[in-house]
Amino acid sequence: MSAPSPAGSAIPVGHAFSSVFALLGPHMAELDRFLHGQLAAFEPEIRTMADYCIDTSGKRIRPALVFLSGWRGPKAISPELVRVAAVVELVHLATLVHDDIMDGAEVRRSRRTAAREYGATAAVLLGDALFAHALNLATQFPTTEICSAVSESTRRVCAGEIVQTLRRGSTNVTRADYQRIIDLKTAELFRVSCLLGAKLAGFAPGYVDAVSQFGRHLGIAYQIYDDLADFFGEEKRIGKTLGTDLASGKLTLPLLLLMERLSAAERAELTGEILGQKPVQPALRLRQMGELGVFGDVALAVKAEVDAATAALQEWPDEAPTVLLLGLCEVLRGQVAALRPATA
Amino acid sequence: MSAPSPAGSAIPVGHAFSSVFALLGPHMAELDRFLHGQLAAFEPEIRTMADYCIDTSGKRIRPALVFLSGWRGPKAISPELVRVAAVVELVHLATLVHDDIMDGAEVRRSRRTAAREYGATAAVLLGDALFAHALNLATQFPTTEICSAVSESTRRVCAGEIVQTLRRGSTNVTRADYQRIIDLKTAELFRVSCLLGAKLAGFAPGYVDAVSQFGRHLGIAYQIYDDLADFFGEEKRIGKTLGTDLASGKLTLPLLLLMERLSAAERAELTGEILGQKPVQPALRLRQMGELGVFGDVALAVKAEVDAATAALQEWPDEAPTVLLLGLCEVLRGQVAALRPATA
Repeated sequence: MSAPSPAGSAIPVGHAFSSVFALLGPHMAELDRFLHGQLAAFEPEIRTMADYCIDTSGKRIRPALVFLSGWRGPKAISPELVRVAAVVELVHLATLVHDDIMDGAEVRRSRRTAAREYGATAAVLLGDALFAHALNLATQFPTTEICSAVSESTRRVCAGEIVQTLRRGSTNVTRADYQRIIDLKTAELFRVSCLLGAKLAGFAPGYVDAVSQFGRHLGIAYQIYDDLADFFGEEKRIGKTLGTDLASGKLTLPLLLLMERLSAAERAELTGEILGQKPVQPALRLRQMGELGVFGDVALAVKAEVDAATAALQEWPDEAPTVLLLGLCEVLRGQVAALRPATA
Repeated sequence: MSAPSPAGSAIPVGHAFSSVFALLGPHMAELDRFLHGQLAAFEPEIRTMADYCIDTSGKRIRPALVFLSGWRGPKAISPELVRVAAVVELVHLATLVHDDIMDGAEVRRSRRTAAREYGATAAVLLGDALFAHALNLATQFPTTEICSAVSESTRRVCAGEIVQTLRRGSTNVTRADYQRIIDLKTAELFRVSCLLGAKLAGFAPGYVDAVSQFGRHLGIAYQIYDDLADFFGEEKRIGKTLGTDLASGKLTLPLLLLMERLSAAERAELTGEILGQKPVQPALRLRQMGELGVFGDVALAVKAEVDAATAALQEWPDEAPTVLLLGLCEVLRGQVAALRPATA
């Protein structure tokens, strides 16, 4: 479930949002304190391992969405928002631990993955323990509402990942499949982060709904952007870790559109690459994506979702979170504009 | 976390409790209906896979503990008990799905494991989705209490499994380590099953505590018995799937005691077997366990825990669940008595 931010991603995608995130320094410091305080709740035997997973070098996008969606001004850092930010981050971290096992990833954020450090078996269980603790934290609210929303979202994230996994190394993926996968695996946790932030801050139900819709569309946009950056990111152009999605047989939107636009013969060859029957040719595919207008159309797909996110907040210009959340949209638009096809 | 009932276990250990479980036919039928009704809650793409995991051939020990601990007579099948029985069973099934990945198991309950059927990656995620749904179901009670207890127990079960995993293939395991591992990985979910059954049935707090203690001791007893049966079970004596724990380098109580009692030279050789440096000699180890009194002492360890379980209910002879729960103790005593060392 690391898809929004694969280790080794060329562009520091998490920093796409950094200008808005700068507001959140004190919130993130509070979150880190809170997360480290949670270690005491883990059984002594697994505390060091849990600590290893709760590193502070992550991008903390989902907690940021909680804090921004529940924004009531810079002074007030609500303990409830901190707690729910910890919940969504722990769910995300658990998915990363499991992701890295399945991908055979050795390194994340410049250090060894939990799977590499403790072995795959312990990492499966460690991810489970992080999930369990996240949901335990979610029960520390007066009602079951928070835990209910988070556990349902978690199931949906897993469902999205399962569908993606089963389609890996297959060319039998439609654009509708792709939309469904990213809606579940990425947009769902963005959505629930926004929803819970706004709800816990006491905003009106109509606004909570609007912010949830915003989060969902932002999540979809972010994932499509991330899939585009996998081909057109900064380091990619100089040939480093180019097209990891192609190499792993993951049919993301850029590849899907390229497949549609290639000649039958070329398509057969690319199919062989995706099925793992032929060596991948990332430089060629990148060039073709530029030539056949794939880059532009994927960028338009991001734009459409960013527009939808913006539209979701249209009727709520005066609520405090709105301007901050719209700021995220602007930053993401700018990041897409900064990507360039190789032939441009 | 399959330890209480490994696939291919020689003795149908789950049926140890069958005489008491016979009471629960209607309850289990209701549970099966409820569990299958849950499939609709899963995303359509993963419904078939979830259904595959929710098979009805399991022993349903934890649901039985819920129903017996909340026993108010044969007529009343409380929907709340059914729901919480489903929660603990789903948690257990999720752990089995993850277990089978880690053990590389191909078959469980006479059919292919989820890992074998859908691949390890999908199985990790499927286990996660089952966990998430179990905890989501647990939020469908009026308060956060149930979900809080179950999520904490789940974390403890995982912690126990992690400790066991990290000690596998090592001879650096003490009897205290063993006790701690089984307390977490097995007794915890037994305990919480009893606790929630009694609590939801409205029994007095003192009795709820007593039943929880009962469940914990029964779980410890059951796990020690299961570890003993791994060596001395019916099919084991004729050489089939003998000593799977030895083969997988798992230092259970029978092996721990054997290590203590062997001569230095013999101990060094057994150490080599546990470390995977030498071929295992299960028949020899089995004979030695009989000769050196290991069998008898492990049986005594089971008895001590069954006695502790019995004692926990001593002050509550008149509550309806007591006689049924004590019946479980008798059945387990009988099962241990039915095991025999090879040299006896």
